[in-house]
Amino acid sequence: MIELRPVVFITGILMSILAVAMFIPAVVDAAIGHPDWQVFAAASGVTLFIGVAMALTTRTSLRSFSLRQAFLMTNLAWLVTATCGALPFHFSELELSFVDSFFESMSGVTTTGSTIIVGLDHAPPGILLWRAILQWLGGIGIIVMAIAVLPILQVGGMQMFRVEAFEADKVLPRAAQIAGGISIIYVFMTAGAAFLLWALGMDGFDALTHAMTSIATGGFSTHDASVGYFESAGIDWAMTLFMILGSLPFVLYLRAVRGDVLSLARDSQVQLFFAIVVAAVLATAFWLWHQHTMDLHDAFRYAAFNVVSLMTGSGFSTADFGQWGGFVLALLFSLMFVGGCAGSTTCGLKIFRLQVLYATARAQMRRLTQPHGVFFPYYNKRPIPESVSASVMGFFFLYVTSFSLLAIGLGLTGADFVTAVSGSATAIANVGPGFGDVIGPAGTFAPLPDSSKLLLCLGMLLGRLELFTVLILLSPSFWRG
Amino acid sequence: MIELRPVVFITGILMSILAVAMFIPAVVDAAIGHPDWQVFAAASGVTLFIGVAMALTTRTSLRSFSLRQAFLMTNLAWLVTATCGALPFHFSELELSFVDSFFESMSGVTTTGSTIIVGLDHAPPGILLWRAILQWLGGIGIIVMAIAVLPILQVGGMQMFRVEAFEADKVLPRAAQIAGGISIIYVFMTAGAAFLLWALGMDGFDALTHAMTSIATGGFSTHDASVGYFESAGIDWAMTLFMILGSLPFVLYLRAVRGDVLSLARDSQVQLFFAIVVAAVLATAFWLWHQHTMDLHDAFRYAAFNVVSLMTGSGFSTADFGQWGGFVLALLFSLMFVGGCAGSTTCGLKIFRLQVLYATARAQMRRLTQPHGVFFPYYNKRPIPESVSASVMGFFFLYVTSFSLLAIGLGLTGADFVTAVSGSATAIANVGPGFGDVIGPAGTFAPLPDSSKLLLCLGMLLGRLELFTVLILLSPSFWRG
Repeated sequence: MIELRPVVFITGILMSILAVAMFIPAVVDAAIGHPDWQVFAAASGVTLFIGVAMALTTRTSLRSFSLRQAFLMTNLAWLVTATCGALPFHFSELELSFVDSFFESMSGVTTTGSTIIVGLDHAPPGILLWRAILQWLGGIGIIVMAIAVLPILQVGGMQMFRVEAFEADKVLPRAAQIAGGISIIYVFMTAGAAFLLWALGMDGFDALTHAMTSIATGGFSTHDASVGYFESAGIDWAMTLFMILGSLPFVLYLRAVRGDVLSLARDSQVQLFFAIVVAAVLATAFWLWHQHTMDLHDAFRYAAFNVVSLMTGSGFSTADFGQWGGFVLALLFSLMFVGGCAGSTTCGLKIFRLQVLYATARAQMRRLTQPHGVFFPYYNKRPIPESVSASVMGFFFLYVTSFSLLAIGLGLTGADFVTAVSGSATAIANVGPGFGDVIGPAGTFAPLPDSSKLLLCLGMLLGRLELFTVLILLSPSFWRG
Repeated sequence: MIELRPVVFITGILMSILAVAMFIPAVVDAAIGHPDWQVFAAASGVTLFIGVAMALTTRTSLRSFSLRQAFLMTNLAWLVTATCGALPFHFSELELSFVDSFFESMSGVTTTGSTIIVGLDHAPPGILLWRAILQWLGGIGIIVMAIAVLPILQVGGMQMFRVEAFEADKVLPRAAQIAGGISIIYVFMTAGAAFLLWALGMDGFDALTHAMTSIATGGFSTHDASVGYFESAGIDWAMTLFMILGSLPFVLYLRAVRGDVLSLARDSQVQLFFAIVVAAVLATAFWLWHQHTMDLHDAFRYAAFNVVSLMTGSGFSTADFGQWGGFVLALLFSLMFVGGCAGSTTCGLKIFRLQVLYATARAQMRRLTQPHGVFFPYYNKRPIPESVSASVMGFFFLYVTSFSLLAIGLGLTGADFVTAVSGSATAIANVGPGFGDVIGPAGTFAPLPDSSKLLLCLGMLLGRLELFTVLILLSPSFWRG
């Protein structure tokens, strides 16, 4: 049996924080006299009450966690946040069903960005702000988890990113220190982004919410036309930059702030990320210019924005890329799976895993002609331990399998082929829009049946928590202890 | 430098065999007085002349091959066969371009079954027979390769199927003996299938060609409507059976013939193959009965035939499964990647690789909660050597990567999203038809541009030769020696 006290305690703390965050939209709605402030106040009160009660009744010293407790806590953190975060949607004037509310909330906290709300332009500001807050919290939450929790859990090769100082019993103080430093950077980055967007012509509210959801590579917008609404090249380029900033390893920002400015440029993960982005943007821009007779500047602007948006799993759009032909769609479809760097707000396979997979496949290839040679795969100039490459490969297999099964499940709940396949990819990679008429950039997830929506929620959670963390709960041996 | 003499010698022998095979359609066409007999006779003569010249000028003792020679020979065997096999198509009354002819021939010899010929029902019998012969030779060719060559080359985990007696210097005699035994079984199986199809109502010609292309899990038919032309439940079920027979490990048939009849039932690969087939057929039949109001017998018949046809990479069709909705398409799409058993005529990832991947991922999962435990993945009740699981995982990564890049390439040459994605999958898995209006079961590959066709040829070759075998030729170190 797993001792649940510390798990419940931490979950209670988390709910209390969420309740405080919920109070912000209440204040905003109240300030402009929108009656939905009561919904937020009530939801905040309920969440706070339950959270505090949970924390108080299970108060415990946080000396250490077992691995099982850590896995359980990680799952609960996201599930509880998604559930409590759904309350304002359900009780607001939008009158969303609970499944719809849960979908929107899960899409928020996992920084996916798929929406079921039609008519964002006229939605109450509290709701729009709440969507942005969910993504923003989800963004910093996953960064902290990728630094402090996943390496210790050894999920999918993340043990490579174990910071030596995190070992032994110094875990919590050092982890808290690094997480604190990164959170400050995250706040400053968001503030800077908001200021720049405001300077480029957004109003203060749009600037703040779009800054929050772009640094978090989340993708929620305050307009049905997404960022396309603003029709501004400056805003497009700025948002492209923010999504890229959100896709790099935040630990390296901390190093840069502490003086090691070039650590970003030296990192092999960052190098490959930029190489892929540049190649994909060039190819797409050339295609748009050549095949769709866009002028060269527009071609680059739309290519850069939409390639970066899909690859980083943000999911903003400035154009209906469904009209850009098979080449762009096949490219974007593949890039969805790629994602950004480990330790960022992005999802997907992540660049470092592709590097580990490639290095391992290359070593395999060399062994073919020299069966007695010894070839080690390398990552960032260091040999990859066998346990890491096995973890990464296991992750890759589970990723592809989960994608297939989810697509089949979506088909079973009524989706057509393109909706099923792209919906599965977009959920597991936490992207946002899919392809096709229904869930493409010009549509929403609203028309899907509840069963499809719940499957997509499962996909988002699986992708966000790096598969293993969720799937391990399905194993009976996990619960036997 | 690689010593090419033995490579050229074997290629010459192979061309001579092909020339003899080409003589059969010449005889058939001549017998019914069709003028195309001259095309086959000429093509046969040219191929024989070059083949014999190559073999004679490089005659050598076949004591041993280096690994490099073996890789080169394997590639050349398929490329030369596809090229020479294209001659009759190019010079026949169908007047196909050389790219079209090469596509048809490559599709034949890799047992893919994608066709660019419209109007099969009125095509000359020599041509129809030649298509069947190409697939039939490709089928036995790949079985022999999987038994005698790939395990020694250690391609993608195939070293697991190394027969102990193949080691050391006894390689050739024992390999020849096993290959001979399997060839005899292949011939008898084809004869039996032809007889059964004839008894079920096909004319002799159709019975023979369909027997050849179903045991080879090839998929070439003599009618535009494929097996749907015959509108016979008996024929559908018989063909389903033959495709399944072609998907099992032929070594086990040899064991069965030698008395160990239950070896098939004991094999874990065979067990999982049947489990997947049964589950997929049941689910599809239920779906067709429930959602498409087919009666129960028809639902089973169409589900069984088309599921087996796509999963085994045969590619015959009896219905336009494009109309069966997202569930069936997503399922068939996933099954395309699965394929059949190692050592059969099928392509795809193969069942044993899924088993190795699953076992490895499972061992990973167990390590998560017990980091100090030791967990070995097992296959067929024996622990999987680390080198095998690394090979299989490298293979899986290359498979998914090749699929993505080929889909992007098809998009670049003008294909829409569904054509690009399903075309790439169907080529690499050697299936045959894709999805969508163009290359779906109701269409052909004829409308695609030459660039797309050549990319698809590359995909078929990659898939057929288990990726590594082809990709290794791209490595400069291969040629430096």
